[in-house]
Amino acid sequence: MRPSGRAPDEMRAITVETGFTKHAEGSVLIGFGDTKVLVTASIEERVPPFMRGKGEGWVTAEYSMLPRATHTRGSREAAKGKQSGRTQEIQRLIGRSLRSVTDMKKLGERQITLDCDVIQADGGTRTASISGAWIALRLAVQGLLASGAIKEDPLTRKVAAISCGIVNGTPVLDLDYIEDSSADADANFVLIEGGHIAEVQATAEGATYDEEALLRLLRLSRMGCEQIFAAQDKAVR
Amino acid sequence: MRPSGRAPDEMRAITVETGFTKHAEGSVLIGFGDTKVLVTASIEERVPPFMRGKGEGWVTAEYSMLPRATHTRGSREAAKGKQSGRTQEIQRLIGRSLRSVTDMKKLGERQITLDCDVIQADGGTRTASISGAWIALRLAVQGLLASGAIKEDPLTRKVAAISCGIVNGTPVLDLDYIEDSSADADANFVLIEGGHIAEVQATAEGATYDEEALLRLLRLSRMGCEQIFAAQDKAVR
Amino acid sequence: MRPSGRAPDEMRAITVETGFTKHAEGSVLIGFGDTKVLVTASIEERVPPFMRGKGEGWVTAEYSMLPRATHTRGSREAAKGKQSGRTQEIQRLIGRSLRSVTDMKKLGERQITLDCDVIQADGGTRTASISGAWIALRLAVQGLLASGAIKEDPLTRKVAAISCGIVNGTPVLDLDYIEDSSADADANFVLIEGGHIAEVQATAEGATYDEEALLRLLRLSRMGCEQIFAAQDKAVR
Amino acid sequence: MRPSGRAPDEMRAITVETGFTKHAEGSVLIGFGDTKVLVTASIEERVPPFMRGKGEGWVTAEYSMLPRATHTRGSREAAKGKQSGRTQEIQRLIGRSLRSVTDMKKLGERQITLDCDVIQADGGTRTASISGAWIALRLAVQGLLASGAIKEDPLTRKVAAISCGIVNGTPVLDLDYIEDSSADADANFVLIEGGHIAEVQATAEGATYDEEALLRLLRLSRMGCEQIFAAQDKAVR
Amino acid sequence: MRPSGRAPDEMRAITVETGFTKHAEGSVLIGFGDTKVLVTASIEERVPPFMRGKGEGWVTAEYSMLPRATHTRGSREAAKGKQSGRTQEIQRLIGRSLRSVTDMKKLGERQITLDCDVIQADGGTRTASISGAWIALRLAVQGLLASGAIKEDPLTRKVAAISCGIVNGTPVLDLDYIEDSSADADANFVLIEGGHIAEVQATAEGATYDEEALLRLLRLSRMGCEQIFAAQDKAVR
Amino acid sequence: MRPSGRAPDEMRAITVETGFTKHAEGSVLIGFGDTKVLVTASIEERVPPFMRGKGEGWVTAEYSMLPRATHTRGSREAAKGKQSGRTQEIQRLIGRSLRSVTDMKKLGERQITLDCDVIQADGGTRTASISGAWIALRLAVQGLLASGAIKEDPLTRKVAAISCGIVNGTPVLDLDYIEDSSADADANFVLIEGGHIAEVQATAEGATYDEEALLRLLRLSRMGCEQIFAAQDKAVR
Repeated sequence: MRPSGRAPDEMRAITVETGFTKHAEGSVLIGFGDTKVLVTASIEERVPPFMRGKGEGWVTAEYSMLPRATHTRGSREAAKGKQSGRTQEIQRLIGRSLRSVTDMKKLGERQITLDCDVIQADGGTRTASISGAWIALRLAVQGLLASGAIKEDPLTRKVAAISCGIVNGTPVLDLDYIEDSSADADANFVLIEGGHIAEVQATAEGATYDEEALLRLLRLSRMGCEQIFAAQDKAVR
Repeated sequence: MRPSGRAPDEMRAITVETGFTKHAEGSVLIGFGDTKVLVTASIEERVPPFMRGKGEGWVTAEYSMLPRATHTRGSREAAKGKQSGRTQEIQRLIGRSLRSVTDMKKLGERQITLDCDVIQADGGTRTASISGAWIALRLAVQGLLASGAIKEDPLTRKVAAISCGIVNGTPVLDLDYIEDSSADADANFVLIEGGHIAEVQATAEGATYDEEALLRLLRLSRMGCEQIFAAQDKAVR
Repeated sequence: MRPSGRAPDEMRAITVETGFTKHAEGSVLIGFGDTKVLVTASIEERVPPFMRGKGEGWVTAEYSMLPRATHTRGSREAAKGKQSGRTQEIQRLIGRSLRSVTDMKKLGERQITLDCDVIQADGGTRTASISGAWIALRLAVQGLLASGAIKEDPLTRKVAAISCGIVNGTPVLDLDYIEDSSADADANFVLIEGGHIAEVQATAEGATYDEEALLRLLRLSRMGCEQIFAAQDKAVR
Repeated sequence: MRPSGRAPDEMRAITVETGFTKHAEGSVLIGFGDTKVLVTASIEERVPPFMRGKGEGWVTAEYSMLPRATHTRGSREAAKGKQSGRTQEIQRLIGRSLRSVTDMKKLGERQITLDCDVIQADGGTRTASISGAWIALRLAVQGLLASGAIKEDPLTRKVAAISCGIVNGTPVLDLDYIEDSSADADANFVLIEGGHIAEVQATAEGATYDEEALLRLLRLSRMGCEQIFAAQDKAVR
Repeated sequence: MRPSGRAPDEMRAITVETGFTKHAEGSVLIGFGDTKVLVTASIEERVPPFMRGKGEGWVTAEYSMLPRATHTRGSREAAKGKQSGRTQEIQRLIGRSLRSVTDMKKLGERQITLDCDVIQADGGTRTASISGAWIALRLAVQGLLASGAIKEDPLTRKVAAISCGIVNGTPVLDLDYIEDSSADADANFVLIEGGHIAEVQATAEGATYDEEALLRLLRLSRMGCEQIFAAQDKAVR
Repeated sequence: MRPSGRAPDEMRAITVETGFTKHAEGSVLIGFGDTKVLVTASIEERVPPFMRGKGEGWVTAEYSMLPRATHTRGSREAAKGKQSGRTQEIQRLIGRSLRSVTDMKKLGERQITLDCDVIQADGGTRTASISGAWIALRLAVQGLLASGAIKEDPLTRKVAAISCGIVNGTPVLDLDYIEDSSADADANFVLIEGGHIAEVQATAEGATYDEEALLRLLRLSRMGCEQIFAAQDKAVR
């Protein structure tokens, strides 16, 4: 039995509130149970130095946790003067995931930054960020299409992410914080609508795992992402 | 006529949602019109080095703006590796304001940190932070009293803050972003329930001002703070 | 009775030594009793990025305390690798104060930096910095006028600053370190010759204060600034 | 055909030179073709703060590339004043991988740091680091056992890592730099002797991939790691 | 002919004003012509971690140039967030020089920090700092002896420093800024009263030099230091 | 008797392995006994801002010690976020030394960076770096000449460096770590082939020294550098 009473393949409730803030070109407060992430998409009409002059765009991400998003207060990275290795690892993953579904030529020479700020954390903040970032990016792209700034849709597929893990010997879907803390293995899958994979990160924490377990987790993640794709679809219609 | 159509002495709508996040000992999302600040109060059973061993507590604050809280995206302070002078000035003001109404002996040797994170900005974020921080602090203190951790209430008065300014020659209350950008003078008042003053910061931006204008702004701020005190009262009852 | 034996409305001796260093376009060692600040004005024929191409100038300030300006040695900010919040707050205030009396169009596209380095501290270092900075700026501007680099005087009014406070229940003028440490309220006024106000920063330290006290402090500051204006006048003639 | 002329499942030559430096408790220069990494294991008789007093040890890693390990010179991280996100991500992976085969209770309250410095880079530096780190760690542990500092061997299994990828549609083993730059997908596998998995990181670069491709890459990595286990075995005998 | 009209072996005027600031245990404004350095000695009753518990003292130095000590304004190191290599090199030299004449056992477990702040620069700031630092240190030690905090004088010899160089083929003593900028070789000598040498740093700038030139510069430095020893002697009597 | 059994004027074995890494334009692993430094020369077709547009080149150096090059592990500067004063002092010395034998006009508007990474340390790492850097620079320059990128050889003289010191009262050549730790005086000489001096840095550590000792150390250094010049010659032929 999972601490939350959920079945092994049962997701937490997904909540989506688009337009949560008004200035960003795309904005969403996405929730997976008690995990709440605010994602905004900001369009800037310039690209980073290494991309200049190619007529192509760029999509990047930043990630942060509010100091008291967690059970005990963590110190603020801006006050410490640097981002942790964990933060950098996560924001690199988010950026990579969203770039895997964006056609940079169609986007044109502009950058979209996805700011993922965790308002409340209960496990799965990086995967929630990716799933929410797609919605914010989609909304921003719709604005570009509507205004005629771009002609062709650079974003033709959906991307979503979910964590799975082996907890007390059982493969389970969508870990909350209690499960995440005690999991033997913990995997994050970034999946593309239609069946393809953008990224697998599967880590042994307490005990190493075998190929069968990896495949079982991949299968669970497919089930979870189907539900996220549906929620994304509803949010941007 | 103000851009918003408000009368010179008219506040924006005050919205207060307590318990916005679940981990913090006190939490509130406070809004003044389109300005929205999430304030959490975190209790830690230790004090900073300079306060140790005195049997007294400490109240401090941190402030940050989400990168896309504003019209155009600002860079993330954690990524830049340091807090701006503006951020530091604001968090020092918030901490000082809340300490002015806290009896540190009654609080006992523990620290309460008020994290003020601006979700959406439309002028007056520092004063909204102070007014909201009192609510979060009050909620955290009620928890300490309820659990018996402290015996006497260390927080016997309310503190609130509001900005006023001279815009196009007219003294007005509760500036929004458009007014703030074009104000000749801009003043932040931190007031104590009952009439006393904790802090005045009145700055000439476009044109210097005279004593009469200062007094007129002080009077407007008293009107505004009465409404905030009422909202605070309602929120923590 | 004040620790120094001064009457409540009595200033410390003001000393002014212009040309204290030889390289700067303007230079002054200003003293208020034992508080001594070296201010230099440096002209550079370029403006910060946000001001470029407007044909207007910029005035900015930096502030620092020598490590042993104070009773006990403080650590050197360059060695710690960052400026404290207090330092940044003060240098922002100095810059703002001097900009309030400078016509940027008449200054032309150049920047004047006012470096305020506290050689010895005994209270009131930020207000001494502002009062001295006006002298250094005035001297630098006279050089620009004399050389024909600018045609019209961009600096037509004086600005001065002084601290006042409520110590043991009595409003007093020009606090020294002992008074500053024990004041119930501490206010810095930046005043323009002729009666206008550029900035008020009035902070409750031990006890909050009322409107009458604020006005009494403002009145004391007017008395003090009259003496500073006279000293400034004499220094630059 | 691969640029190097290798078959799809063909590794580069593995070279191992133990004792490359003399001060470290364990030291090895490991090479996979032109990729050369110097790994040292340093034992310190203390653990990080979060591990103190538990009677358990800790294994951690640091990673760096010499500025001219690469085709064009990269800037030195010490000179820039911070480690890149990539560096932090890699050193976290190395540490995690080695901890997955270390019994911290048997190691006792001491820390072993694995410094992985890339002398020359031609793809696969992180996996070479992990495979070499096991050797350096093994040598350091043998010293502890020989001196009687520990009684039981904390390191009973081998861990190795290798990269695989899909290049021009073909799954290939042990990517060199040219292949790495043009791969559609790039996966790093950290495997435990005997068949278990410690970590999978599989990332779509140019094109997303499907489950079959993931399994094919896993199979290739098993073939590669068998050769590494043999080389490790020979090195520490 | 030297730009200043001085003879090759002619020093600039040495000026010494002790007690320039009042809080420090030792304080001096030392001048070599237009080079002016304020040195303060601060006693703290603790030593750095690596010296603790040995019953011995420590002497260290910090060095800084005010931004406008020079012909054109340099940026403030505190604002840039780090000390330059030049600054660190100089402060290490100053500390080493003063430690060479201090008996750390007699000083007892306390630290004396010598802050050398260049008020105005015209060449030779590091050597002026060393020569002035001896005076400030001497004054601080006299205070310790007078108060009975230490019994035996830890400072039995004088140390002084001067720069020499080869300018237009001629060896000259006590370079000013113009000479320093065009010197073929530039040497700093730290000498002990009585003839011994604490440090030689002789650098070819434009052209390398031979042994004879090195000895000629050493001889010039001896002449200069004799005058500095006399000035030091007079200052502390 | 020296700890190593060497005669006072006896060098350690010099080992030189050119082409140690393959990407750099020049590369050498140089050893003086157990001290091993990897030096690479990297050519970039741009110069630092202060050299732009002059048609002249620049030579600079960076220095670092691998964390476990030493007896006990030192912390990694990249992880600490700054280079120590010692590191900066050394890399400034290396750059200066190599610039003293380079004709910048003949080099043309390009920069050569000499990265000196200490693989194993046993005293004399900075002098080994200089001696090795000349070899790497020479190799890089030969490449430029061979490719026709430059017409005239900008490097017509050799530069080498060696440390000497007074250990137990005896002047000795080429200090190893044990001698270096206990030397009364420690001197680094940078000499030019043919007899000239580029730099002398002679520091009293335990006891000050006299002129005769300085000359004796200089003479020893000449003997040592003759051997280094021969080794350099052999390496680049």
